[in-house]
Amino acid sequence: MAFALDPRLERDSAFACDLALCQVRVFNDERWPWLVLVPKVEGAVELTDLSPAQRATLMEEVVRADEAVLALGATFGRLPEKTNVAALGNVVSQLHVHVIGRRADDPAWPRPVWNHGEPRAYGPEMALAIGAVCSALGVSAAPAEEMSDA
Amino acid sequence: MAFALDPRLERDSAFACDLALCQVRVFNDERWPWLVLVPKVEGAVELTDLSPAQRATLMEEVVRADEAVLALGATFGRLPEKTNVAALGNVVSQLHVHVIGRRADDPAWPRPVWNHGEPRAYGPEMALAIGAVCSALGVSAAPAEEMSDA
Repeated sequence: MAFALDPRLERDSAFACDLALCQVRVFNDERWPWLVLVPKVEGAVELTDLSPAQRATLMEEVVRADEAVLALGATFGRLPEKTNVAALGNVVSQLHVHVIGRRADDPAWPRPVWNHGEPRAYGPEMALAIGAVCSALGVSAAPAEEMSDA
Repeated sequence: MAFALDPRLERDSAFACDLALCQVRVFNDERWPWLVLVPKVEGAVELTDLSPAQRATLMEEVVRADEAVLALGATFGRLPEKTNVAALGNVVSQLHVHVIGRRADDPAWPRPVWNHGEPRAYGPEMALAIGAVCSALGVSAAPAEEMSDA
């Protein structure tokens, strides 16, 4: 599969682990427990670029990511109360799905999180975040270095 | 099915037609061809409140709505170049999925459309919008009055 990750997605998020269809990445903004799922399908931009079977898998991987987002929030003492799921792609055209944990006391509530202030990078705690996500997904974390070559 | 539409969704959008799982509604803001899909499942808030079969249906209805959004945009001479799909629900908790046609020359591009300026209601052209959507979906439009009692 000649899948290549968009450079901006690579810069703004960290590889956590692979599911059957998607690469799961932690968005590097600790203000929200925020995952990005990137279907490993060459050239996919819209949902219509996936097959029906791939779309069904994507939906179920989004639901698994929802559980991982809850675990990620809980790890940092902020269990989400609501999940936002979105495939926008206006800036980065490569198909990717945001799965974001929200709380009524979070910085942007009730507005969407995009374009809200400046991101706050995780720093060394990113490793903890990745561990929480992969553990919740029941898969082992792979080094990001391996994925950059994918 | 004791499905009841949230009053705010009812106010902000117009009933277009019913698919197997979702009520399809035209968001009453002519700045974007914008549909809202509301699964007719009592009490559903998150995707996890649907069964896997319902979620698979939702995904395919989103894809059909994507085609309807293209038709809706084309009807008003503005064929979308990109689709935004999102289930947010921070303001209206009832599960609903936005399917929005975007263009690089639209008022909010490349930002998301939510909270951007003031909505511009369709007026009498809403009937044309509903007709375009239902025609693209291959289903007949039903009077909104019927649905309010659903």
